[in-house]
Amino acid sequence: MSVNEVYPIIWIDDHVRLIDQNRLPETYTLVDIRYVHDMAEAIRTMIVRGAPAIGVAAAYGMYLGARDIQTTDPATFLQQLEAIAQLLRGTRPTAVNLFWAVARMLKTAHETPGSVPTRKLALLEAAKVINTEDIQTCKAIGDHGLNALLNYSSPLRILTHCNAGALATAGYGTSLGVVRSVWRAGRLAMVYADETRPRFQGAKLTTWECIQEGIPVTLITDSMAAHCMQRGLIDVVIVGADRIAANGDTANKIGTYGLALVAKAHDIPFYVAAPLSTIDFNLVDGSQIPIEERQASEVYQLGSITLCPQGVKFYNPAFDVTPAPLITGIITEYGVYQPDGLKSLSGQQK
Amino acid sequence: MSVNEVYPIIWIDDHVRLIDQNRLPETYTLVDIRYVHDMAEAIRTMIVRGAPAIGVAAAYGMYLGARDIQTTDPATFLQQLEAIAQLLRGTRPTAVNLFWAVARMLKTAHETPGSVPTRKLALLEAAKVINTEDIQTCKAIGDHGLNALLNYSSPLRILTHCNAGALATAGYGTSLGVVRSVWRAGRLAMVYADETRPRFQGAKLTTWECIQEGIPVTLITDSMAAHCMQRGLIDVVIVGADRIAANGDTANKIGTYGLALVAKAHDIPFYVAAPLSTIDFNLVDGSQIPIEERQASEVYQLGSITLCPQGVKFYNPAFDVTPAPLITGIITEYGVYQPDGLKSLSGQQK
Repeated sequence: MSVNEVYPIIWIDDHVRLIDQNRLPETYTLVDIRYVHDMAEAIRTMIVRGAPAIGVAAAYGMYLGARDIQTTDPATFLQQLEAIAQLLRGTRPTAVNLFWAVARMLKTAHETPGSVPTRKLALLEAAKVINTEDIQTCKAIGDHGLNALLNYSSPLRILTHCNAGALATAGYGTSLGVVRSVWRAGRLAMVYADETRPRFQGAKLTTWECIQEGIPVTLITDSMAAHCMQRGLIDVVIVGADRIAANGDTANKIGTYGLALVAKAHDIPFYVAAPLSTIDFNLVDGSQIPIEERQASEVYQLGSITLCPQGVKFYNPAFDVTPAPLITGIITEYGVYQPDGLKSLSGQQK
Repeated sequence: MSVNEVYPIIWIDDHVRLIDQNRLPETYTLVDIRYVHDMAEAIRTMIVRGAPAIGVAAAYGMYLGARDIQTTDPATFLQQLEAIAQLLRGTRPTAVNLFWAVARMLKTAHETPGSVPTRKLALLEAAKVINTEDIQTCKAIGDHGLNALLNYSSPLRILTHCNAGALATAGYGTSLGVVRSVWRAGRLAMVYADETRPRFQGAKLTTWECIQEGIPVTLITDSMAAHCMQRGLIDVVIVGADRIAANGDTANKIGTYGLALVAKAHDIPFYVAAPLSTIDFNLVDGSQIPIEERQASEVYQLGSITLCPQGVKFYNPAFDVTPAPLITGIITEYGVYQPDGLKSLSGQQK
């Protein structure tokens, strides 16, 4: 089994190196990020995307911004760091890991005693810890997911939506982390990848990741999922998450909600795989999750092709909310939880 | 109100003129078809598409083929006409209007008394009648659909999938025929058009037709339909059909089944609009409907863009089957029927 590990965010000496996810699978391009403004732009333009990966990228962004603050006064430093935090928080509204990572970095800056240089060093260490923890978290999600899925028929045909893989995390992936663990255990028959309109993260990124590791993958359009279920081709659905409310309602890439509904109609188990940092215990339910709307050109423009004539209106929500009752289980690094059991984890969140 | 009537198939003197639907909306290109082999190719490559339009095109194809048969012996003529019929039947497997039109033309050839030239003339007249009837049928479907929809809140927000418009018929359309009638009655607020992957008939054709007539249209990806319903943006769903079994199970463009499931989950009425010629009374239920699989490149190739890397597998079913219990009503030229009431119409079919 050839295993080509994918790490979309790595720290090298004094800067961050990202895989440019807008250019996959055509070209494997690395982008070096040295300033917080470039990191904010990389998040906004989706060079780096996926909720956990955005969290890790934002943590490094906080350090890069902190490093360039020109003061030796800790109070002034902390004040200017708040502006850095605000810049990063403004990049994308839905994935809560962004806000979680920024808050954790701010806490480190505030709670580290001593000089500004000491605090800067602590911020770099904190970002590296968030990075390393995320990979460990994904591997734990993979293990717990594998255990949960051993209850079903084997070998498994798993349908996934968007990309919640190594590319969406610091490495290994959440929903694709579970897929990897199932594959490495010899229990995987096929991954069905929804192409995931409008940005094609399933067609471009999930297939690419699977091919790197030799995992068998069949690409379908989002509209084929229900038909595949009707034909008996799907054993289980696993998706990632961008923000999970305290009651288990889950915001994830647009199309997830419809997929959950059609899975329910076929009695196919529907799992969400996500780290604890994706849970927003401040929100009672999913109605409070802000849903990003992105530019219309994502829907009507495909390279040089304009799909529709002038005068058409567009709606381009990037996420939707799947109500908790449609979710079989939420696979976290602490184990698999029923949506209404998440609250017991609130004390564990860093 | 500016009304630009769209007729995708017209007879001119001695040949058929088609709108090339593969080139819309970029360019409005007309293609002249003079030989049955060219008509077969136009159906296969989807220059003309949509179940009723395929029926009309096949009827003209039967005449073009008949005209070129070089015999004066009626028995030989009928024998050679069977080969023409077989050529046309082999173009696409799912839309039953194709088989219905070919059978009706064969019946005309057999039942017309007299010489070969007389029979050829009868075939041209029969094709013209099928053409004219189809437009009248669509207008009747529009009227019946309007009456049915007056029961719901007004003005209406109607979601449709693929293109079952003027372009999919001889003119006016089935599901878009209903939309037109609702619009002309001043009762339409918005059409939501699913883009309809993989071939984008919704993005390319439905939006184009709506814009021709000034009908307000919002384009969404197929994956956004459930979210739009959850947000309360959709009052009713109307789709066309490629083949309806005697029990009301309906084959239509891939994605229709998932759409019916999500409409059901939101208690949103789900209508099918189709002429009687789309009903296959020979099939007890939808499990017997053959589902065309088309080439994988429709999924992975977008103009010059290849979406995914080498080694990926594909599945590209062009249609799916929506079970009758998910269908609120089937809007035909004879009125709106519950799926289990279709059988009463079997005597009416020509």
